[in-house]
Amino acid sequence: MTRFYSDNVTSVCPEIFDAMLAVNHDDAPAYGRDDVTTAMTRRFSEIFECDLAVYLATTGTIANALSLSAITPNFGAVYCHRLAHVNTDECGAPELFTGGAKLIPIDHEGAKLTARGLDEHIFGRGVEHHARPSGLTLTQATELGTLYQPHELEALCRLAKKKGLKIHMDGARFANAMSALEVTPAAMTWQPGIDVLTFGGTKNGCLMAEAIVFFDLDLAADFAYRHKRAGQLLSKTRFISAQFEAYLQDELWLHNAEHANRMASRLSNGFCQIPDIELAWPTEANEIFVHLPDHVETGLVESGHTVNRTILDPSAARFVTAWNTREEDIDALLACCLRLSEQHLAVTQA
Amino acid sequence: MTRFYSDNVTSVCPEIFDAMLAVNHDDAPAYGRDDVTTAMTRRFSEIFECDLAVYLATTGTIANALSLSAITPNFGAVYCHRLAHVNTDECGAPELFTGGAKLIPIDHEGAKLTARGLDEHIFGRGVEHHARPSGLTLTQATELGTLYQPHELEALCRLAKKKGLKIHMDGARFANAMSALEVTPAAMTWQPGIDVLTFGGTKNGCLMAEAIVFFDLDLAADFAYRHKRAGQLLSKTRFISAQFEAYLQDELWLHNAEHANRMASRLSNGFCQIPDIELAWPTEANEIFVHLPDHVETGLVESGHTVNRTILDPSAARFVTAWNTREEDIDALLACCLRLSEQHLAVTQA
Amino acid sequence: MTRFYSDNVTSVCPEIFDAMLAVNHDDAPAYGRDDVTTAMTRRFSEIFECDLAVYLATTGTIANALSLSAITPNFGAVYCHRLAHVNTDECGAPELFTGGAKLIPIDHEGAKLTARGLDEHIFGRGVEHHARPSGLTLTQATELGTLYQPHELEALCRLAKKKGLKIHMDGARFANAMSALEVTPAAMTWQPGIDVLTFGGTKNGCLMAEAIVFFDLDLAADFAYRHKRAGQLLSKTRFISAQFEAYLQDELWLHNAEHANRMASRLSNGFCQIPDIELAWPTEANEIFVHLPDHVETGLVESGHTVNRTILDPSAARFVTAWNTREEDIDALLACCLRLSEQHLAVTQA
Amino acid sequence: MTRFYSDNVTSVCPEIFDAMLAVNHDDAPAYGRDDVTTAMTRRFSEIFECDLAVYLATTGTIANALSLSAITPNFGAVYCHRLAHVNTDECGAPELFTGGAKLIPIDHEGAKLTARGLDEHIFGRGVEHHARPSGLTLTQATELGTLYQPHELEALCRLAKKKGLKIHMDGARFANAMSALEVTPAAMTWQPGIDVLTFGGTKNGCLMAEAIVFFDLDLAADFAYRHKRAGQLLSKTRFISAQFEAYLQDELWLHNAEHANRMASRLSNGFCQIPDIELAWPTEANEIFVHLPDHVETGLVESGHTVNRTILDPSAARFVTAWNTREEDIDALLACCLRLSEQHLAVTQA
Repeated sequence: MTRFYSDNVTSVCPEIFDAMLAVNHDDAPAYGRDDVTTAMTRRFSEIFECDLAVYLATTGTIANALSLSAITPNFGAVYCHRLAHVNTDECGAPELFTGGAKLIPIDHEGAKLTARGLDEHIFGRGVEHHARPSGLTLTQATELGTLYQPHELEALCRLAKKKGLKIHMDGARFANAMSALEVTPAAMTWQPGIDVLTFGGTKNGCLMAEAIVFFDLDLAADFAYRHKRAGQLLSKTRFISAQFEAYLQDELWLHNAEHANRMASRLSNGFCQIPDIELAWPTEANEIFVHLPDHVETGLVESGHTVNRTILDPSAARFVTAWNTREEDIDALLACCLRLSEQHLAVTQA
Repeated sequence: MTRFYSDNVTSVCPEIFDAMLAVNHDDAPAYGRDDVTTAMTRRFSEIFECDLAVYLATTGTIANALSLSAITPNFGAVYCHRLAHVNTDECGAPELFTGGAKLIPIDHEGAKLTARGLDEHIFGRGVEHHARPSGLTLTQATELGTLYQPHELEALCRLAKKKGLKIHMDGARFANAMSALEVTPAAMTWQPGIDVLTFGGTKNGCLMAEAIVFFDLDLAADFAYRHKRAGQLLSKTRFISAQFEAYLQDELWLHNAEHANRMASRLSNGFCQIPDIELAWPTEANEIFVHLPDHVETGLVESGHTVNRTILDPSAARFVTAWNTREEDIDALLACCLRLSEQHLAVTQA
Repeated sequence: MTRFYSDNVTSVCPEIFDAMLAVNHDDAPAYGRDDVTTAMTRRFSEIFECDLAVYLATTGTIANALSLSAITPNFGAVYCHRLAHVNTDECGAPELFTGGAKLIPIDHEGAKLTARGLDEHIFGRGVEHHARPSGLTLTQATELGTLYQPHELEALCRLAKKKGLKIHMDGARFANAMSALEVTPAAMTWQPGIDVLTFGGTKNGCLMAEAIVFFDLDLAADFAYRHKRAGQLLSKTRFISAQFEAYLQDELWLHNAEHANRMASRLSNGFCQIPDIELAWPTEANEIFVHLPDHVETGLVESGHTVNRTILDPSAARFVTAWNTREEDIDALLACCLRLSEQHLAVTQA
Repeated sequence: MTRFYSDNVTSVCPEIFDAMLAVNHDDAPAYGRDDVTTAMTRRFSEIFECDLAVYLATTGTIANALSLSAITPNFGAVYCHRLAHVNTDECGAPELFTGGAKLIPIDHEGAKLTARGLDEHIFGRGVEHHARPSGLTLTQATELGTLYQPHELEALCRLAKKKGLKIHMDGARFANAMSALEVTPAAMTWQPGIDVLTFGGTKNGCLMAEAIVFFDLDLAADFAYRHKRAGQLLSKTRFISAQFEAYLQDELWLHNAEHANRMASRLSNGFCQIPDIELAWPTEANEIFVHLPDHVETGLVESGHTVNRTILDPSAARFVTAWNTREEDIDALLACCLRLSEQHLAVTQA
């Protein structure tokens, strides 16, 4: 059983699979010089309402690491949350692809950075003894399922710009954030000051599709080389482009995310109604972190459910919903929890 | 028109697409802990008749570069042909992933290394002034469409082992080589001494599927870290595994390659019968390099054909056949060449 | 005026300069194959009472970074204090020389790590998503002039060994620590479990002399290559060896450090007797961190004294003593502080 | 006996040692913010008749590798002679410091590149599959003791500039080249187009002193970071600066080189007069490569002479003269050779 384990265990949604099949009729130019790729880039431009450059990648890890390689020299420092995926779950990929730049981890609750916390960690610009403050990376939605509100994002970007930092957003769950907040894609990214975005598709219905979206076109100047050198220039690029074409068409990306978020709310609300379960963090996108008492956790596992404890918050269990989460699975999980809770109550009261 | 431009412009063969669809029914464990991936590894083992470790990759470039990172320390030297893909067409990916090991290019005709040529280039083992001789990488079939005969491979491997080198084979077109030679996969690889193989699927009918196959399991000991750090640990690994499952089943990989090679023979033989065209290199797999006179080349382009001159041999035009090459396209190309040749003859004789 | 600014602004002590002159009489084999270098290694062995391997370096930065490159793979993590020189003052040199390993900063007062703090930060061993826990680096004396007591060192080393970490000690001020604690060099290093030591000479009377001392000889196996590749294999090695020969002879290193520490005590005690100055951290070696009121700091600067505020503790001023610090300079500094303090008192009371 | 083994086994010449002693009177600002370093930079400017930036290094290896890191991105290619020190004798340091740029070795007799040879190796600019052609590195005097004549240098630089390459000169024996050619330092460097020079002092009388001299100041813009990160920012910089101050004063550098070259001529001419010895390469600076018959080589070794065969030309023995080579040592070596030659003649004729 992998249900709720993560949104990366999901299958591919039909529209996206069909789009791949649709580009398989004949030979086509390699390395992204095909029509589908051109069309896809145009669509990104429309959605973000600006000129931009798009490079494709097959994992979020490499999309993030390559993005960072564009915003920092190898002697630079990039600020991130201590729990950022780039810092904890990429086995040093950012260090590899940036040529050894330093990630400076900053701690704050909810996996969210604050302008004040960032400010306290920046030092030494212009003094060669210290890695040069160069970049900031933010995750939206965060690794704990929380969200940066627009004004929080603006405050962070304003400070970062003032300090001369280029800004990356890890949007592995960008769609979930977009769906939860009442803003446009532009307002979430380049308008406050994001320079480069990792736009994830894999967790939200794609087979394997991540895009590196440059709003600051200067940063993209030499990027074709970095991208190729990282082994990410795919001969059959069109099969990734086709996924994004379908993903972005008719707001499929938002619909998928909306469903995942709604399922997360349902699960989160359900948890809240069970006496001895409580949320570890507010459920703002499609991840739920809850404190489970031992008797519930043990019972769930015995009943065949998966309980995932991550390094992000070892005190809490994580449940993740996705584009294909079914209400009945949520209800079954909640029912099981409730039963376990009540049984325990009965026993302890007896 | 991309016909004959390369075997990487092709579509995906139906059996392989179907296999991807077949694993899309439900969620499955991420990162290769699914059943399809387990089955795929077993199949590799059967085909190569040995224990082995398999890691998947999405491009040949990264599969090669990561393989090299397993056979050399960052202060080591890896010997390769001057025209090897790793040396000319990967934008320094081997240098990135090995942490800056040196590729030592060696020249010899037909893109083939010889034991003697290799011997002349190895020096300084054990003296820290010189990068430590650590690895050898061979391409089979080569970048010029030629093949290492079994005895040539054995001679190279014997010397390499004597010199303490670990050996990598770039098998982007391994199937084409296998199909052309009367040997088993084992006899082409670990029996003579290959330690790690890049086993390519993308050019021979897959969507995007490269495997790094370790015969020397010690080299694979820490490889999971290198693989993850390179951004190659795919959450939805099963979609690559499924491609290989189908590819290896019922010898599809060999049938596809056989077709491509047969088409190459047909085209090559056809070229030989045209008076003013001659082969630049023997056609031993699925690539044909020919010297085209100007009037033929110009005429082909005017007729809408693609003529690809690569850096591998700028004096020759390259034509590549693939699993889906059609006889009628070959015959049309040859007819066009013949017509151009005859027209030219008529004019010059007039 | 650079007095008290740092111990790296000092001149070279005469015995050491003379030793360099003494090896200048004639040609000698390059790259450390000379007699002086052999003798120096033997002397290190005697002092540390064990077999060991010594490599020389010209800066502490590169000695540290190269040491770390021997204790972690490029996909590894090395734990350090947030204020460690390797983390704050080496512009990413550790990341460069380790090929991109991660430094994991841990905070704790006095620039000292604790076993508990270390334990809380180690996670994910054996899971390829996370950089592999590989190394620990400690600074003795620390960047804030404090010391690890033997039992603290033992507790840290015990935990680190249990967790599979190799241990590096940054001993830029090792002599100052040795002189302050009642232990042998062995008891400070390999006996509790230090695997490799950066043994500094430059801050304590040498011209430019840092040694990388391996107690774990396995770690040194390939180190000659790393050392050469870092550009640290000096043709005229004997001029560094000669410095260490003199430095280690007749306990010159300890005498120099003892003097520096005694001067630090004098200065520290003096500060304590001035009403409005207080120590930021205990003075345990040759660095004094004090909270200076504005009127004292301003007055000192106006009187031509240097007041150095570092990133290590921006709230405090740092004063460093050295092998050549003169009592009269200390007394003059203290007198100036006292005068400023009294003037201020007079004014405020008036 | 290390006589003639290399010019890096020599002692330090007295003027230079005295200059180091002269700056040892007192404390001085660290990291090159001292007066001696300022004066030294000015002197470099006078000698090269231009504005320039100077960074100091302790070995030629790191000076070269860091220079290259300033002229190529990590995805770039740098062209060099196959026998260049950077390619054969630096254990991959250039690859480390450039972050994995490719050195493209080109072969040509006498360790000298030609414009034509260079032209044949450059390809693929602007195509991301190929490492970007970025730099050229030349050694003057070369590793085989030959020289680039001014017109050869100009031709190479002209082509390199046309191809968009930045140019580095490895001047480990720059003084020997200068002394042999009738040109100014400017005419040897920035006038034809050299952008950055490794200016060596260690082989010509210094203790340990290499300078990285930037004529293209844009390349130096971020270099302070690279320099620090490489562990080359020395706290006691003034002791290297003092060496260069003395070295450049009153043309000591040229006098030392002139002596070495004159001694090389004497030895080379002497060899030419011995019937069975012949020069492998013309003696144009301070290195002599000769073909020695076995009886001479064996006899020399038996008589206590050192015969050094290098990887540069294994068919020849190398003899190197230096600032402190004595005529009587040359004459003794030649006399020994002559005696051995005559003895052999007598035996074979008997």
